[in-house]
Amino acid sequence: MKIKNNFFTKKTNIYLSDILKIFKNTEIKENIKIYNITDLDKASKNDISFFNSLRYLDLLSKSNVKYVITSEKYSKIVKNYCKPIIVKNVLKSVALITKLFYPNSLDDAVDFSLKQPIESNYKKIKFGKNILIGKNVKIGRNTIIGHNSIVESNVVIGLDCVIGNNVIIKNSIIGNNVRILDGAIIGKKGFGFLPDKKKNFRYPHVGMVIIHDNVEIGCNNTIDRGSISDTIIGKNTFIDNQVHIAHNVKIGENCIITGQVGFAGSSTIGSNVSIGGQAGISGHLKIGNNVQIGGGSGVIKNIPDNTKMMGYPAKDIRKFLKENK
Amino acid sequence: MKIKNNFFTKKTNIYLSDILKIFKNTEIKENIKIYNITDLDKASKNDISFFNSLRYLDLLSKSNVKYVITSEKYSKIVKNYCKPIIVKNVLKSVALITKLFYPNSLDDAVDFSLKQPIESNYKKIKFGKNILIGKNVKIGRNTIIGHNSIVESNVVIGLDCVIGNNVIIKNSIIGNNVRILDGAIIGKKGFGFLPDKKKNFRYPHVGMVIIHDNVEIGCNNTIDRGSISDTIIGKNTFIDNQVHIAHNVKIGENCIITGQVGFAGSSTIGSNVSIGGQAGISGHLKIGNNVQIGGGSGVIKNIPDNTKMMGYPAKDIRKFLKENK
Amino acid sequence: MKIKNNFFTKKTNIYLSDILKIFKNTEIKENIKIYNITDLDKASKNDISFFNSLRYLDLLSKSNVKYVITSEKYSKIVKNYCKPIIVKNVLKSVALITKLFYPNSLDDAVDFSLKQPIESNYKKIKFGKNILIGKNVKIGRNTIIGHNSIVESNVVIGLDCVIGNNVIIKNSIIGNNVRILDGAIIGKKGFGFLPDKKKNFRYPHVGMVIIHDNVEIGCNNTIDRGSISDTIIGKNTFIDNQVHIAHNVKIGENCIITGQVGFAGSSTIGSNVSIGGQAGISGHLKIGNNVQIGGGSGVIKNIPDNTKMMGYPAKDIRKFLKENK
Repeated sequence: MKIKNNFFTKKTNIYLSDILKIFKNTEIKENIKIYNITDLDKASKNDISFFNSLRYLDLLSKSNVKYVITSEKYSKIVKNYCKPIIVKNVLKSVALITKLFYPNSLDDAVDFSLKQPIESNYKKIKFGKNILIGKNVKIGRNTIIGHNSIVESNVVIGLDCVIGNNVIIKNSIIGNNVRILDGAIIGKKGFGFLPDKKKNFRYPHVGMVIIHDNVEIGCNNTIDRGSISDTIIGKNTFIDNQVHIAHNVKIGENCIITGQVGFAGSSTIGSNVSIGGQAGISGHLKIGNNVQIGGGSGVIKNIPDNTKMMGYPAKDIRKFLKENK
Repeated sequence: MKIKNNFFTKKTNIYLSDILKIFKNTEIKENIKIYNITDLDKASKNDISFFNSLRYLDLLSKSNVKYVITSEKYSKIVKNYCKPIIVKNVLKSVALITKLFYPNSLDDAVDFSLKQPIESNYKKIKFGKNILIGKNVKIGRNTIIGHNSIVESNVVIGLDCVIGNNVIIKNSIIGNNVRILDGAIIGKKGFGFLPDKKKNFRYPHVGMVIIHDNVEIGCNNTIDRGSISDTIIGKNTFIDNQVHIAHNVKIGENCIITGQVGFAGSSTIGSNVSIGGQAGISGHLKIGNNVQIGGGSGVIKNIPDNTKMMGYPAKDIRKFLKENK
Repeated sequence: MKIKNNFFTKKTNIYLSDILKIFKNTEIKENIKIYNITDLDKASKNDISFFNSLRYLDLLSKSNVKYVITSEKYSKIVKNYCKPIIVKNVLKSVALITKLFYPNSLDDAVDFSLKQPIESNYKKIKFGKNILIGKNVKIGRNTIIGHNSIVESNVVIGLDCVIGNNVIIKNSIIGNNVRILDGAIIGKKGFGFLPDKKKNFRYPHVGMVIIHDNVEIGCNNTIDRGSISDTIIGKNTFIDNQVHIAHNVKIGENCIITGQVGFAGSSTIGSNVSIGGQAGISGHLKIGNNVQIGGGSGVIKNIPDNTKMMGYPAKDIRKFLKENK
């Protein structure tokens, strides 16, 4: 599967001085060209990244990046690996730099380029009624698009997919043999913003949703795209109805996610994980491989591989069942 | 923001005798004109109101209203402040009087006056495709309405709003700079009815949904309008995906409501409240200002100001975390 | 209410030998014509059924069926009542036989026969805009169908119903005076499949959704059809917004199901049951009559008649409240 983010127009003439100007930073004198703002693990030497939690120390230590946005608190740690740009509010600073690179990243609520597809432009694809398709959409052979569905500009959908009715897809790359059931909403910006009592500051979301081969997405699911990284659903994972997947969540292969489960932002779920109905996974967690999470559980801590958990908060399932006999 | 309920046609020639006739009440001899049925705190002298729980004693004591529907049980209390009209079933009686004033209040499931908007009638508004707009809809400048969305008759939408795709809005007044994301359903009647083994008796809902400036409403939210009072979302409150807000709920300013949270009917939430994913708030509660409610919590009691709660049922968060180490 | 499943084309020339061939079973020499594959309690002598859990021993003992798919483990028990066909994987075998009888049962994601209704074909029915109706749909007098809604082929809708906007109905039979509110999705295949690390095997769903008279279905509900049996909502049951009802669930009469409740597959709920918001009911359970389940509960065991339960896992409500004072 070819994965390339064509959804946001990136400015290509940003220099370090443009970034420093935002923070009125006059200490750093170097002025190299900066290519992008991205995660520590994806950043090359000429990108800029950020560090805001010891949780990501391992990524920092391995990163190739030269300049890292961080707070006073972490500046000494960052210095061990690269050059810190110290700011008061890391998240807000990242948001401002993201807007600098992607000035249109907040204006994506409605794609006004949508039109009824000219069917002759799409070979071996079956379209329902009242479909709206954006510019530069790629759809693979034998794929079906149901009635009233919307596929926004630059979306890529693979071969042999079934997209149901009333589905909305934006900022997404979808593999082969994927089913997206009626009413699912894929790829809108995440629930990320900086609270401000006068008027909250919306966080730009320049990530995508990536859905790998053989996945099934249930009815009325909402899967938000990533902020800087992507939201990813791994191969052959099946998701039931009314599931909510927040920005930057990464789910592995062969997972079974039952109805009404919710994932808060930026959690990573391993492969072969099954999650019972209505369970909730807090943000920024790491759930291992071969994990089973009972229905209704509330997961607020990392879970190691090969574990069965249940409860609120989730604990070893035998312990939970014993305590609740 | 100008707030006026133009959604339901009210009869203007209702006398106290018309109301008393419903209950075969022949005790009260006075026969004044009654203007409306409404909540104790909104009722003027010539309206009629109701009292059905000691929870609202404070409102009763301050009310200007003259006649109050109540049960035998509360008649003595009511007598201290105004004139009771004693009935067997207060809720059913209120429903019957509401139907007397608003005979069409139950027939609002589908607005057949909807038409594609004549764009020249709306200045500086951007419309997507397949939009349906009712009669007498007001939309402010620079507002965007996404594809396939429905805005029913008499709805008011402010300036600089973004209404997404597949959105349905009825019986609502919406401020400026509000975002309503894809698939949200705003303003349908609440889940209020009087159970009857043959055929439940649907409760008329003549309230509105009022959404103040700078609010964001997530995808696939359902926000029901009020029965007699209104459902209100305060200024700058942000709501994530798949949240359900029942009738008469009032949420303050600057709140952060995360995904899949649910509010039962008639609860009041203060300002600066944050609620974690999948938490549930029972009906008729009062949540104070500056409250933080952890994800997955089940709130079944009032919460005072400046409190952090978590658990099911919700308790002090330190206690919850200590008990669950 | 006349209930007949016309949604799937059944092959009528299937012999026992066709079925045995799938499993390379050469032991059984008889070769009768088999009419259908169905549940133990519905199967006639010339159907085929299956037995996979002691939970259904009572149904087995009363069944008229002659041949039953089962595993080695249960073969002796089955022999007491009828002739076992022993297979390695009962569920997969049932799926394969179902596909043999209903070869098109997996291709139902999008109904391409949908068209705007020719209104003169439907008497005394009010249609909104942009409606799509399939072939052979029956709609009763005085029924209303809202804007943008989809009613797929062979669906039956009774008299005096109100179907809201953006509703999708397939594989369903709906009684009289039923309300289905905006955005509900009724009758899609259930979340049933046999996990396989390369590519999960989707389970055919040839059941229906049956909704009896006077029912109300809330906004954005998802009600999946049955796999072999049906999903059933009993008379005068009212369901709030964002409820998820999985395949084969059977709900009795006069129930009250509040917002965001979820039912896992194959559970049976009695009559006069009320369930508070966000409660979850696990799969394959039996909930009695006159049961009250508190909001947020997680039900993982059967519940006898006339019981009040709350908690996660659900227990006697007095015990729950006492423990959580």
